[in-house]
Amino acid sequence: MAVPTLLVLEADPPPRLGQLTGRATIRYANEENFAAQLPSADALLVWDFLSDAVRLAWPGDGPRPRWVHTASAGVDRLLCPELINSDTVVTNARGIFEKPIAEYVTGLMIAMAKDLPGTLELQRQHRWRHREGLQVGGSRAVVVGAGPIGRAIADMLKALGVEVAVTGRTARPGVHGADQLDRLVTGADWVISAAPLTDATRHMFDARLFGLMQPSARFINVGRGQLVVEDDLLAAVSKGWIAGAALDVFEHEPLDPANPLWDVPGLIVSPHMSGDTIGWRDRLGTQFLDLYELWADGKPLPNVVDKKRGYVPMHD
Amino acid sequence: MAVPTLLVLEADPPPRLGQLTGRATIRYANEENFAAQLPSADALLVWDFLSDAVRLAWPGDGPRPRWVHTASAGVDRLLCPELINSDTVVTNARGIFEKPIAEYVTGLMIAMAKDLPGTLELQRQHRWRHREGLQVGGSRAVVVGAGPIGRAIADMLKALGVEVAVTGRTARPGVHGADQLDRLVTGADWVISAAPLTDATRHMFDARLFGLMQPSARFINVGRGQLVVEDDLLAAVSKGWIAGAALDVFEHEPLDPANPLWDVPGLIVSPHMSGDTIGWRDRLGTQFLDLYELWADGKPLPNVVDKKRGYVPMHD
Repeated sequence: MAVPTLLVLEADPPPRLGQLTGRATIRYANEENFAAQLPSADALLVWDFLSDAVRLAWPGDGPRPRWVHTASAGVDRLLCPELINSDTVVTNARGIFEKPIAEYVTGLMIAMAKDLPGTLELQRQHRWRHREGLQVGGSRAVVVGAGPIGRAIADMLKALGVEVAVTGRTARPGVHGADQLDRLVTGADWVISAAPLTDATRHMFDARLFGLMQPSARFINVGRGQLVVEDDLLAAVSKGWIAGAALDVFEHEPLDPANPLWDVPGLIVSPHMSGDTIGWRDRLGTQFLDLYELWADGKPLPNVVDKKRGYVPMHD
Repeated sequence: MAVPTLLVLEADPPPRLGQLTGRATIRYANEENFAAQLPSADALLVWDFLSDAVRLAWPGDGPRPRWVHTASAGVDRLLCPELINSDTVVTNARGIFEKPIAEYVTGLMIAMAKDLPGTLELQRQHRWRHREGLQVGGSRAVVVGAGPIGRAIADMLKALGVEVAVTGRTARPGVHGADQLDRLVTGADWVISAAPLTDATRHMFDARLFGLMQPSARFINVGRGQLVVEDDLLAAVSKGWIAGAALDVFEHEPLDPANPLWDVPGLIVSPHMSGDTIGWRDRLGTQFLDLYELWADGKPLPNVVDKKRGYVPMHD
């Protein structure tokens, strides 16, 4: 078999690909010259996972890559009808981001429960003002999203004594169906968004859903910005429908400096970093090498995306 | 038996004591009139646990209270040689603060690992700047203090995948002796102070110990301020001997507005609130009522302090 051509869509070159010398002919593309190179690729590594180039350039003029791997958990930026309906296999970076994101969510919850933002502000002012925190253990959380990230969040919160309900598209053992979401959200202290972005989930967190939440409840989004109607969230926090929120992802990233979300009291804004711990790019590179070996040897790949659903289904 | 006289040292009256009507003659004292009332008390509830009045007023002129209960975990403010050598039983509020403090420490660790203070500062400036966090899972923590608070911290961190070593006065199953502290601190990513304040622990965290820590390590104190030589900690953080710290307790509380600790980059200052969650005063009141019932009935009390050691020994 001829040496396959691997096309790498990247803004910064990924590490470790030199290990493929002799096993792949590697070509690098950026957003500008990506479309021209796509047809000649056997495999595509989407290293620049913030790019929309794949969705916009697909289909090319010639044979498609037979395999697309994205160095991300979400595949929403890739998928277009032509790719969904093709035979091309799509894989994702499942296994890299779960624990870091679960830690991030746990940390945000405790920080909000203990008013760490208020503490830091008082520290700036050299003011000693004792306050009482909430106990996270015994509180109730709904994790929206039953994929590996949602489940990692749920597991960590359970270890802290939080009562956790997980919701997914359909009910199955340990997972409530989407039809239970309204009921669960109504009684929750925490609503955590870790769902894949699909047509079914886009803008699911809207005024109606925030209106179901308790005034003492808080919302955290580590999924995708487009899961949330940002104007509705801004209103819900500003008007005290809910007690607070933390957003790590946004409809448009980077968040515009003029966006009013930066300035909402009780709302924490972070720059899409929940899953990114030191060494993550190296881990993503290593993961891709492992998948490449399997693919080049004609073996089955893990982390295969159900393109119609828009995520990697869980089997358990 | 005559109705016992219960003296309550308080700044704000505690809840629930009305339930003792008929079972106790309750007298309230503040720091000014405490010494005069002490000799006539059969039992003493130290509700104002920030007061030094007990240590300063003991011994009174007459018979001592036979029982002293403090609404705190630490008993360092109470104990004086005369009380230590008396027959008076001292009990503490074990069971109330453990989980809240464990959550607080966990939250501080994740907040520091993910640079939440930096995120909040960037938010103030409307600046989107992606950073990579540390993973808490897999990191190494030393918890100094093998009492119920130290153990609750250790248990919660272990649930997050942290490698935890606990040190106490003497080695026993699951606890390293104080002679192992230097070695453990040298390899730790986190050093967490949850020790009782005794003659053996006072100012134990000094330049020598901070000098053993890794430059990437962080220090958290939720025990007592006097465990730390604050000037040494200030220097260690300022000079980069260690990467950061979080102090919830201080040599002198409230921390003076002019104290330089407020302004050290990488140092989080909070106002002695780690164990205080909404409802905590009510829980402390309920706990005292339960103990009072036992005491009035002549039954053995739980949470009895080993006055010579300065804490409630763990039996396991």
